[in-house]
Amino acid sequence: MFAHNKRLQYTVRVAECNPALANLMLEQFGGPQGELAAAMRYFTQALAEDDPGRKDMLLDIATEELSHLEVIGTIVGMLNKGAKGKLAEGAEEQAQAFRELQGAGNDSHVTQVLYGGGPALTNSGGQLWTAGYIDSIGEPTADLRSNIAAEARAKIIYERLINLTADPGVRDALGFLMTREISHQQSFEKALYAIQPNFPPGKLPGKPEFANVYVNTSQGEGDMRGPWNSDENFQFLSDREKFLAMDGGSGMPEVSLDKQQQATLMQMAKRTRSDPSSNPETGADLGSGTGPQGTRH
Amino acid sequence: MFAHNKRLQYTVRVAECNPALANLMLEQFGGPQGELAAAMRYFTQALAEDDPGRKDMLLDIATEELSHLEVIGTIVGMLNKGAKGKLAEGAEEQAQAFRELQGAGNDSHVTQVLYGGGPALTNSGGQLWTAGYIDSIGEPTADLRSNIAAEARAKIIYERLINLTADPGVRDALGFLMTREISHQQSFEKALYAIQPNFPPGKLPGKPEFANVYVNTSQGEGDMRGPWNSDENFQFLSDREKFLAMDGGSGMPEVSLDKQQQATLMQMAKRTRSDPSSNPETGADLGSGTGPQGTRH
Amino acid sequence: MFAHNKRLQYTVRVAECNPALANLMLEQFGGPQGELAAAMRYFTQALAEDDPGRKDMLLDIATEELSHLEVIGTIVGMLNKGAKGKLAEGAEEQAQAFRELQGAGNDSHVTQVLYGGGPALTNSGGQLWTAGYIDSIGEPTADLRSNIAAEARAKIIYERLINLTADPGVRDALGFLMTREISHQQSFEKALYAIQPNFPPGKLPGKPEFANVYVNTSQGEGDMRGPWNSDENFQFLSDREKFLAMDGGSGMPEVSLDKQQQATLMQMAKRTRSDPSSNPETGADLGSGTGPQGTRH
Amino acid sequence: MFAHNKRLQYTVRVAECNPALANLMLEQFGGPQGELAAAMRYFTQALAEDDPGRKDMLLDIATEELSHLEVIGTIVGMLNKGAKGKLAEGAEEQAQAFRELQGAGNDSHVTQVLYGGGPALTNSGGQLWTAGYIDSIGEPTADLRSNIAAEARAKIIYERLINLTADPGVRDALGFLMTREISHQQSFEKALYAIQPNFPPGKLPGKPEFANVYVNTSQGEGDMRGPWNSDENFQFLSDREKFLAMDGGSGMPEVSLDKQQQATLMQMAKRTRSDPSSNPETGADLGSGTGPQGTRH
Amino acid sequence: MFAHNKRLQYTVRVAECNPALANLMLEQFGGPQGELAAAMRYFTQALAEDDPGRKDMLLDIATEELSHLEVIGTIVGMLNKGAKGKLAEGAEEQAQAFRELQGAGNDSHVTQVLYGGGPALTNSGGQLWTAGYIDSIGEPTADLRSNIAAEARAKIIYERLINLTADPGVRDALGFLMTREISHQQSFEKALYAIQPNFPPGKLPGKPEFANVYVNTSQGEGDMRGPWNSDENFQFLSDREKFLAMDGGSGMPEVSLDKQQQATLMQMAKRTRSDPSSNPETGADLGSGTGPQGTRH
Amino acid sequence: MFAHNKRLQYTVRVAECNPALANLMLEQFGGPQGELAAAMRYFTQALAEDDPGRKDMLLDIATEELSHLEVIGTIVGMLNKGAKGKLAEGAEEQAQAFRELQGAGNDSHVTQVLYGGGPALTNSGGQLWTAGYIDSIGEPTADLRSNIAAEARAKIIYERLINLTADPGVRDALGFLMTREISHQQSFEKALYAIQPNFPPGKLPGKPEFANVYVNTSQGEGDMRGPWNSDENFQFLSDREKFLAMDGGSGMPEVSLDKQQQATLMQMAKRTRSDPSSNPETGADLGSGTGPQGTRH
Repeated sequence: MFAHNKRLQYTVRVAECNPALANLMLEQFGGPQGELAAAMRYFTQALAEDDPGRKDMLLDIATEELSHLEVIGTIVGMLNKGAKGKLAEGAEEQAQAFRELQGAGNDSHVTQVLYGGGPALTNSGGQLWTAGYIDSIGEPTADLRSNIAAEARAKIIYERLINLTADPGVRDALGFLMTREISHQQSFEKALYAIQPNFPPGKLPGKPEFANVYVNTSQGEGDMRGPWNSDENFQFLSDREKFLAMDGGSGMPEVSLDKQQQATLMQMAKRTRSDPSSNPETGADLGSGTGPQGTRH
Repeated sequence: MFAHNKRLQYTVRVAECNPALANLMLEQFGGPQGELAAAMRYFTQALAEDDPGRKDMLLDIATEELSHLEVIGTIVGMLNKGAKGKLAEGAEEQAQAFRELQGAGNDSHVTQVLYGGGPALTNSGGQLWTAGYIDSIGEPTADLRSNIAAEARAKIIYERLINLTADPGVRDALGFLMTREISHQQSFEKALYAIQPNFPPGKLPGKPEFANVYVNTSQGEGDMRGPWNSDENFQFLSDREKFLAMDGGSGMPEVSLDKQQQATLMQMAKRTRSDPSSNPETGADLGSGTGPQGTRH
Repeated sequence: MFAHNKRLQYTVRVAECNPALANLMLEQFGGPQGELAAAMRYFTQALAEDDPGRKDMLLDIATEELSHLEVIGTIVGMLNKGAKGKLAEGAEEQAQAFRELQGAGNDSHVTQVLYGGGPALTNSGGQLWTAGYIDSIGEPTADLRSNIAAEARAKIIYERLINLTADPGVRDALGFLMTREISHQQSFEKALYAIQPNFPPGKLPGKPEFANVYVNTSQGEGDMRGPWNSDENFQFLSDREKFLAMDGGSGMPEVSLDKQQQATLMQMAKRTRSDPSSNPETGADLGSGTGPQGTRH
Repeated sequence: MFAHNKRLQYTVRVAECNPALANLMLEQFGGPQGELAAAMRYFTQALAEDDPGRKDMLLDIATEELSHLEVIGTIVGMLNKGAKGKLAEGAEEQAQAFRELQGAGNDSHVTQVLYGGGPALTNSGGQLWTAGYIDSIGEPTADLRSNIAAEARAKIIYERLINLTADPGVRDALGFLMTREISHQQSFEKALYAIQPNFPPGKLPGKPEFANVYVNTSQGEGDMRGPWNSDENFQFLSDREKFLAMDGGSGMPEVSLDKQQQATLMQMAKRTRSDPSSNPETGADLGSGTGPQGTRH
Repeated sequence: MFAHNKRLQYTVRVAECNPALANLMLEQFGGPQGELAAAMRYFTQALAEDDPGRKDMLLDIATEELSHLEVIGTIVGMLNKGAKGKLAEGAEEQAQAFRELQGAGNDSHVTQVLYGGGPALTNSGGQLWTAGYIDSIGEPTADLRSNIAAEARAKIIYERLINLTADPGVRDALGFLMTREISHQQSFEKALYAIQPNFPPGKLPGKPEFANVYVNTSQGEGDMRGPWNSDENFQFLSDREKFLAMDGGSGMPEVSLDKQQQATLMQMAKRTRSDPSSNPETGADLGSGTGPQGTRH
Repeated sequence: MFAHNKRLQYTVRVAECNPALANLMLEQFGGPQGELAAAMRYFTQALAEDDPGRKDMLLDIATEELSHLEVIGTIVGMLNKGAKGKLAEGAEEQAQAFRELQGAGNDSHVTQVLYGGGPALTNSGGQLWTAGYIDSIGEPTADLRSNIAAEARAKIIYERLINLTADPGVRDALGFLMTREISHQQSFEKALYAIQPNFPPGKLPGKPEFANVYVNTSQGEGDMRGPWNSDENFQFLSDREKFLAMDGGSGMPEVSLDKQQQATLMQMAKRTRSDPSSNPETGADLGSGTGPQGTRH
């Protein structure tokens, strides 16, 4: 069960209101790499996890991410605080209010007009948060890798926001949040490698004849070799004929059909056949204005 | 530029039609861990990539994933081939057609009624594919980790589908596709570690005082220690007072407001104040049927 | 800041595994009336709220809803526990595994194949949770009404789930969760009516000439009178001519255009004019197979 | 059945074209609180409603909301009329056209480039309208509360738009639309309270021991009392131990498993165990550039 | 402005309740090819249309499609009427209610549990209606073609539903709705070809050297010729070298960068370079369990 | 199977970086009328197609559209190349970086902050690509019409982008892409009319008595006649009584219910009846501040 204390995990000190900066911050509130996605990613994994160590870790980090959601949402709220009252109270002449809204820039108009200046679960472009951002699948050797990657992405978005903000209090809080992603990545790395073996993920082994093949499907100027396709690590295939039907078969699909299925399909084929030997007049011909066809006589 | 050969990368041999199995296969066609997501993930990264080695690798693998999309989509098509014609041609008495559709099971009714038996870009539950499944952010130390995780997830979903399928031809093709994910994961791993250093991802270092702290936010029975929070690797914090305002401040947010902003906010506060000393009659009171309030006299 | 205790707010006792029942429970985990929607609705309102009493209440209830998310997610996890391992470990012959999956019923196949038996942020039909479910707009006289309605809806969905479940432990926990929605509705009712006046919501008054008009736009058999359109409460308009242009104007739109705008629009009008005096041959004519038009000579 | 008259319910008089203002208006066309959401909310309820009075009222209001959709969409069309032709006819030198588009501001570029200046079913940020905005569940004591709240929200968004618009004709029409929301709210209020009792919504009573408890989950500076948690109305719980397992049980989940389920889960647990006593080298170690681990020897 | 009459455009006579059939009908209520999509497609086009003839036609057909939405939604309501009360009133023992719900089949559980048996704006798989289904772009030579195609699709879905339904009253009403799509297609065809010329759509002509080229990008067994790529109509290109850089250039992208941009990019390139000459140890190596690397010494 | 060559189908020459222009180009990358939608539309049709000619054509065009996706994505990448490094490397003082980002305009902030300057599968407003854009249903007489319409729409969006771009290299490449849509439309036209008959689409004929009726549902000033509703082509119905229940029935819905269903519905009706003869006090009354009702005594 959760409990809450009204003190934040990190003190938020905002120098002055700035609705456009507020809007960029939404990227880490309701954006794909943001704190709600992080919290829900780990929380849903925790609920299905039976390994006691991982379950505890996932709950620890999920709870901290919820606390980060609170910090970043509070930053949004502070940056919008000045603008919030104006629209609600009609405190300005309308033409001036319109100019101010437009002048704030980027998509902050959505935050102000639709959400009243509060933090909304959207990214900085107004895209609604969706659970499609969460990629947990219930297998730890995959989920922990997903978590490692998610922490890396979140770290980068914080870095970009820091590079855009001169407000020292906001930079300080963003720096804290960014650092915690580094720490969480380390925990997930330890938890992944504490499972041995963890590669390949899951249980079924691969087919040995295809597991170390590198298929050079993109060719031409720019073809490169490196450890990711080196002869040391991979069997490098460049002959395009060899990519086709790598099983050695025809490469053509087959299925068994019973007589009724065949008959029905033949009927459909006949009804919908595009006659390759015709040269029909078409709607484009009628509409191209090149002849009298456009009007029926 | 792309070119296409009508032979598949792997021969698809389906023993008999099975719309319900077809529908499960959509998970790897238009599902979040499926081949379109994979192909588009690597392709969009490739277009923005300047490093020649990574660009080449991303194009190679993206092109192969498109070829896998073709293989899995062809499996769907073959498994649905028998059902496809029936609905189109009205080949059965309606009550029988309804029973057959219902009997096929799971969400295959959507595939049949809406998509005419063709492979649709949905998952097995009919959820439309969305670009929210793609988490590329344009920083290779994050994106390569995302790719590693994505390959791990795709490998697992193939494994589950194999565990559900007794058709030897389908199992064979799924085994091939599963194996290629293992191979791709290896390439991405090599490419990631060929960047040194790659941790922490990006450029900005973390704040050292917070980078190795483990915050034990979830407590009570079930608290565990392990390498992910061991004293060897982390500073372990369990005292809840120490989590609050880890910067040492008040934990309360602050922002500077000018006089007009303050005045407007005060006006809004007054207008919208919930009086804590009142005990108002409410709509719930009116509707609870416990007194005469429900009817105005 | 949040903290977590591993004990649930209510003990979950599940009699036996049932993946189909698990799937129905997702309605209150990742469905539109579910606990994540509730928690995020109140949490985002709290972050933007300046009134100290409402802020405290919103944080209290948001935190409790997160704890309910944990309870309902744990129910899902328990109900799926038996099925979870089978697919992961390939513990059954494939044809049998397929039959079991199909037999479980409804959309539980998505939960099992894609999410590995864990609680996913979808509704019972696999629809991904979206922030579009949250309707907070940052004005308390509207948001509190939204919260009252949300609690009423959640109460009903729990009631329906209880009506579908014979498992006594699940019924007991659902009954608790349902009851808490009643309690929360009461708190929101009190908080709304502790704002006086709160109707009409917001600040601007309506135009008096239109505020008490009832427009009887749907007529014919079934027209009814009641307090919602009674003469006591409303001016009842049934004459359709009186609905048109209720301002007394033409009902036709107008806008001023400068000369260049007019010229460009005239050019576009000319280019795209559908000639009402023609009777052109069309694509449908070409395709209706009624004449020789289909083939060009 | 519906019929249509080409005169609007309210005359739209727009002083001059303004694509940025047009774009803000989309909030009430295709936004979450807009007129399509309103019309569809009431229309879908009406179709399932058996109570003749409510059915009639829902059809009346749904039909009027469709007419409001027409009014607000016409405003969008008029405000965009000048810009519409330019892009279509290529009436300006391209660099100038680009500057004009950028200068119009906010997200009006989407409306112009993608939708050709017409009203699109998106909000002002380009977010596509989704049926997730509609929260009808088919129980009148919940749905009528949802409708009351929806009218309150729509009223507020109109108020904000009025505060942003100096154009007298637009303000006049928006004022009409805003006023009608007030009137509709009154009808829904009357219809709700004409059901007695209507609280708690639905049929099942709550568990009395939990129905009037207020759980003070958020504590610390800022804790407040008010009618929403007063001792008069609620049993106020602040002791955190008392929130855990409010049923008096262990707070730990339980489920019965058969032998095969247990065996499979044990196998999975063993395969995926994160060894808490290990201290494995990780990918982060390999990538941190602190030692020779990054390169295999 | 709209008006409504409570009589339907077509009488709905349903023989007996059938929740699974009801659910399939949702395909034409809230599905991509359904009546809401049709009504909104034409209505939004009408609002932006300046040509009086097309505007009138679009309003006529939009209004009729709303009336069709009412017919199909009423069918859903009638088919669900029996099930509706049971869940609401708890009229059955729970285990029986669960069996009935499961037995109804397909995704009707969502309609019953979440939507209370009412018609919801989802397709038959529970996918929420989205404005992404509407493809209007504000150019009549494109939009009329889109409308023609939309009517064709809707006709087919009705045909499939008719093929699934033995209930004579439902078949009769579906037959009417299907027929009206045919009629609407004819109107849109006439309106399109009443614009001359209408091909190519829009204003800009194509580049003549590329307008009649057919690029044979997919080769191998199955290559076919027909009127769509015949020598009579097209210049047929099969030489893959000729597809590359069809402008005669290098096929490689170029952009001018200033010095600072170049310097920054070089810095980024250096920081993120994947060294092609290395062979780093990777996370997969650590996790493959093939050596002692998994544990740090 | 697909193969790739690193040379583009058309050489991309960008004069100078321009993030705002880059963002507009996303409309044809990840927008509804863009190249991914085109490629996936034809590719999914091809996989389900049995007619060898159409299958070949669909694969040819799908493969070319993927190559166009590469061209337009490369344009985005080139236009963003200058901005890309700055945010990643923190190459500018933060206040300056913020001003530059804001100054770039439209929604390019999302592309830069979230996607790191790479082409993302969104439209120019940040809306995530969704498979809801694809309307294939597996019947060629419908799908080919959909394809014709899709090519027409894509042609128009390219035309608008050309009208916004002064950069000669970008205009040149866009002109090529626009021209290819014209060519593809011609192929699809030929393929459609090579099926005879193709109207009405599908197999079932319409009901003759309704197939040529034009229902004049929108009346009043602006009513027009043209070939789309002429007496020559249609039976024109203007009498509103004649639209109601066109089958000649009551226009009222009917369904048979068994006794238990009736009893349950009656119970529900009684429980949820809105009493039309009451005039209850409501929440709006309590909140309107017009009397003493707001406070309980």
